[in-house]
Amino acid sequence: MAKRVTGPEIEKLIQLLAKVPGLGPRSARRAALTLVKKKDQLLGPLSKAMGEAYDKVRICSCCGNVDTIDPCTVCTDERRDHGVIIVVEDVSDLWALERAGALNVVYHVLGGTLSPLDGVGPDDLNIAGLIDRVTRGHVREVIIAVNATVEGQTTAHYITEQLAGIDVKITRLAHGVPVGGELDYLDEGTLTAALRARTAI
Amino acid sequence: MAKRVTGPEIEKLIQLLAKVPGLGPRSARRAALTLVKKKDQLLGPLSKAMGEAYDKVRICSCCGNVDTIDPCTVCTDERRDHGVIIVVEDVSDLWALERAGALNVVYHVLGGTLSPLDGVGPDDLNIAGLIDRVTRGHVREVIIAVNATVEGQTTAHYITEQLAGIDVKITRLAHGVPVGGELDYLDEGTLTAALRARTAI
Repeated sequence: MAKRVTGPEIEKLIQLLAKVPGLGPRSARRAALTLVKKKDQLLGPLSKAMGEAYDKVRICSCCGNVDTIDPCTVCTDERRDHGVIIVVEDVSDLWALERAGALNVVYHVLGGTLSPLDGVGPDDLNIAGLIDRVTRGHVREVIIAVNATVEGQTTAHYITEQLAGIDVKITRLAHGVPVGGELDYLDEGTLTAALRARTAI
Repeated sequence: MAKRVTGPEIEKLIQLLAKVPGLGPRSARRAALTLVKKKDQLLGPLSKAMGEAYDKVRICSCCGNVDTIDPCTVCTDERRDHGVIIVVEDVSDLWALERAGALNVVYHVLGGTLSPLDGVGPDDLNIAGLIDRVTRGHVREVIIAVNATVEGQTTAHYITEQLAGIDVKITRLAHGVPVGGELDYLDEGTLTAALRARTAI
């Protein structure tokens, strides 16, 4: 803005909101105005919730999930099958798989993928922690659920090599046509994979 | 989510973020994860900024602007021409006009438009405050800058009637082709207005 039209505290709030993913400079202003107008319904509670999250948030020392307890809600859940570990790149992938709710098992968050160009090596990811969990035993299966990108597949291969000597079943997610997807819009690689992995009706 | 995968404090943060305009349930989760990951760069400062805004925010008793001082930054700016008042519907309109920076004058925020169907009458808007400011004198011009909607125009007419007995010039924003706009995409009303108000080159 050319001239100041509001207090520095509100300008600061707008600047910080603009850094939140999903909000840009323009929507940050709109968000700040709504927050200020809904002072007691929204701004107050949100400020309090952020303060509490800031004080209590922990990264699970076992699986890498984001939680307010360590080990996390998932790792301490006795009703889950701790013999199956799903390996994911990011916490958001863990949450997405939990929304699907297909398996009642535990997870391991790598915190990224191997990427030599970006200087990300095996020591930058939580791979040692995974090997450690599997080596300690009681794990029957490791499901590698990394993204179907070049970096994701490289990481999957590396993990498979590292687990080679251990008596554990290693699997990966199936490739195929997304449920509800139209063939016309799919790439050749996906269609080839879906044809090769065709199943009897 | 079917099962709990994270702490109640983080779930609460996601729920509240989803109420911020511009963020939905999905982007609220992404925002919360980013905030938690950038704990010290973003979550901490944002929590602090929200707390300060909550404590200090005021609605200007003169013009209705949102600020941390009362009267606000605009109303206390001695370098502005206090003889011209721009009447707007919302604080966001005030900020938008200030970004344009065309006039160095003061404002009056109505807080909405007359809308009998929604039960919004003259007493629900800050119209009395405007009449009071104009009656006290020293105001040469009132620029009515409400939206070009039916409700906005109704409100403009009502204000014009209320100011009828007072010696003040009342103007409204020009209608015409938006700068950078294409004629092909404009409605007939705008084109007619632009033709009628044509100017010599």
